Amino acid sequence: MNLEIITVGTELLLGFTLDTNGAELGRGLSAAGIRVVRRTSVADRPGEIREAVAAALSRTGAVITTGGLGPTRDDITKQVVAEIYGWPLEFNERLWQELVERYRRRGRVPAESNRSQAEVPRGALVLPNRWGSAAGLWLEGEPGLVIMLPGVPLEMRNLFAAEVAPRLAARAAASGVIRSRSVRVTGIPESTLAERLGEIESAIAPLSLAYLPDLDGVDLRVTAWGLPAADADERLSRAVAELRARAGDVVYGEDGADLAALVLDRARALGLRIAVAESCTGGLLGARLTEIPGSSDVFAGGVIAYDNAVKTAQLGVGSDLLAAEGAVSGPVAAAMAQGAAERFGVDLAVSVTGIAGPGGGSESKPVGTVWFGLAGRGGKGAVHSMFGGTRSEIRYRAAQAALFLLFRRL
Amino acid sequence: MNLEIITVGTELLLGFTLDTNGAELGRGLSAAGIRVVRRTSVADRPGEIREAVAAALSRTGAVITTGGLGPTRDDITKQVVAEIYGWPLEFNERLWQELVERYRRRGRVPAESNRSQAEVPRGALVLPNRWGSAAGLWLEGEPGLVIMLPGVPLEMRNLFAAEVAPRLAARAAASGVIRSRSVRVTGIPESTLAERLGEIESAIAPLSLAYLPDLDGVDLRVTAWGLPAADADERLSRAVAELRARAGDVVYGEDGADLAALVLDRARALGLRIAVAESCTGGLLGARLTEIPGSSDVFAGGVIAYDNAVKTAQLGVGSDLLAAEGAVSGPVAAAMAQGAAERFGVDLAVSVTGIAGPGGGSESKPVGTVWFGLAGRGGKGAVHSMFGGTRSEIRYRAAQAALFLLFRRL
Repeated sequence: MNLEIITVGTELLLGFTLDTNGAELGRGLSAAGIRVVRRTSVADRPGEIREAVAAALSRTGAVITTGGLGPTRDDITKQVVAEIYGWPLEFNERLWQELVERYRRRGRVPAESNRSQAEVPRGALVLPNRWGSAAGLWLEGEPGLVIMLPGVPLEMRNLFAAEVAPRLAARAAASGVIRSRSVRVTGIPESTLAERLGEIESAIAPLSLAYLPDLDGVDLRVTAWGLPAADADERLSRAVAELRARAGDVVYGEDGADLAALVLDRARALGLRIAVAESCTGGLLGARLTEIPGSSDVFAGGVIAYDNAVKTAQLGVGSDLLAAEGAVSGPVAAAMAQGAAERFGVDLAVSVTGIAGPGGGSESKPVGTVWFGLAGRGGKGAVHSMFGGTRSEIRYRAAQAALFLLFRRL
Repeated sequence: MNLEIITVGTELLLGFTLDTNGAELGRGLSAAGIRVVRRTSVADRPGEIREAVAAALSRTGAVITTGGLGPTRDDITKQVVAEIYGWPLEFNERLWQELVERYRRRGRVPAESNRSQAEVPRGALVLPNRWGSAAGLWLEGEPGLVIMLPGVPLEMRNLFAAEVAPRLAARAAASGVIRSRSVRVTGIPESTLAERLGEIESAIAPLSLAYLPDLDGVDLRVTAWGLPAADADERLSRAVAELRARAGDVVYGEDGADLAALVLDRARALGLRIAVAESCTGGLLGARLTEIPGSSDVFAGGVIAYDNAVKTAQLGVGSDLLAAEGAVSGPVAAAMAQGAAERFGVDLAVSVTGIAGPGGGSESKPVGTVWFGLAGRGGKGAVHSMFGGTRSEIRYRAAQAALFLLFRRL
């Protein structure tokens, strides 16, 4: 089954808001076996919404919209779509009572403008919204299928999962599923990775393969289009195994796996505790680890040793060593890790010290130079890498590389 | 001048890639005085690209596309658009030599498949790409204007800024500019903020006002549509002043201002140095501060005191105090800040300790409870807040609130 997404909101066109709703619906619809053939963003203007919805209905016959269901003047999606169907808006007393109740629980009374939120096109199915004030609507009839969801991301997500995905999945079941899996690699340039993988496309056909590079590394995503579910799953499993075998030691996980979570899992399984010492990443590595719920049984803490005086006072890095080697050097990285391991009394510590730019680079140590130290289990050592990109990208890549070092050591 | 954006890529529809190019073009085009009336995302399929480009040309007469200019089978945007114009593709020797040279500098030779990247529709203007291998193209003729840019974000951004924005801005100048400014506030619910602002819409008309809540707080964005530049700027300045006056003490900056950068600026102006002690944010606060280039003259460093033993050993928080009050409490927050101020020898230290969830909450200290300590200049103290959202959102909001505490203290 094919479908189009229409996201309504002038802010989307101005570019101040990213269309995360559109992306989330794309993932959810694909998982339900629906093929999204187009996504359109339009302003909060009746003519533009009408034209987009009508064209999508005539092209594809099925549309999901987000946005424009609130109580303000800008919220006109429902009115426009009701007109397309020729279905009059009717005041729905039950919806209104629910709204009144929702306000009452917060000690408030709905404004007169909220009454429009209780209006429903005659013949539409109401999708109850327990997370906010704008109900979803499901219109199915002469021009096709239009599903309207609110634009607030949390409400959109919950309404989609509770009311829309199950209904669409039931219809799509007959025509096969669209299912993706991915293999996550890091620390390898895309072109080198492509050489390792060789002519894999023919080996995994009819699945498609996409290289999706981001700051975490590269995701190798394989997708099955419109196959029976069991067949899709079996082919995807085989393709994932093939990708893992060809890519080799740069693979760290699959699908949405977060490297920080995998590091914590491995350390937990071994009963080890970890600390960090961060200079150029300035807390980013600790933030990655503590983002994972339950990290406290593995992660003890760390030192943000941004200033050299902190490297000496809090990590015991010799000031003579700092003077002789410079803060961005293997010996200092190793000493930082050693200091963190000792002072936090942990089994394993990793350190990061580098030049994130834009200033501070030199001919021998250009911007992007980063040293990593490891201490604990398996001895003390240091390695370095060069990262490209902006300050922000270099820092993020350095934190990811530090996690990969821990991952491989564990 | 009106224009539509078409972003090409199956991954966009599957939702695994956010359409950041579309948003970035939206901002850039608005800044150049161009009104984006629609944005469409389509798959890498000739029929769908053709239909979308042709429909946009007939509706609006001007289109920018991103994606589909690379060397692989999927890259078909140029072929499809050339067909719409009826302009044959011709091999461009100069473009090819530039490509060969680009590869040579990396010690490589382009593949045969790269030759297609040197093909140009007869009559098209080539927009030279110094950042990658796919040149941009500018086609202007019978069906209208089509500008094609590559999909790699860095290349898209640079080509747009260097080759596209100046040309479009020159055309748009006659019809007025579209210009936005914003006032950034934090630490206030949107509804309370709306009450403070009152009936501001009529006071700033014909400018429009949008409330844009995100994890940093709320951005109040005012936009002038199609006014002469000087008039727009003057009205925007007045509107910003009015917004600041009405919103009051929750305002911290304007436009894209980052609160971490403002904290560093204020501290630098006063000659003060800062340290942090982080529990539930786990490094996020340090990461925010060190994300700003040049932060090292103000930010000394910090302790990620995730484990209570670290709070005692590295920050001198009494274990009796921890036992009596709990790690998430005012006295412990104040002691953490005091410990950081002393051990790092800085003028001002802030601490964060809270329950980010999803586990760890209790009736008296539910998930979202966060205590902040301040020590140094102006004495020692602690305040607490409640934050909603996921673990990730609570952590981010807590880091932002800690920065706002520093900002107000400075």
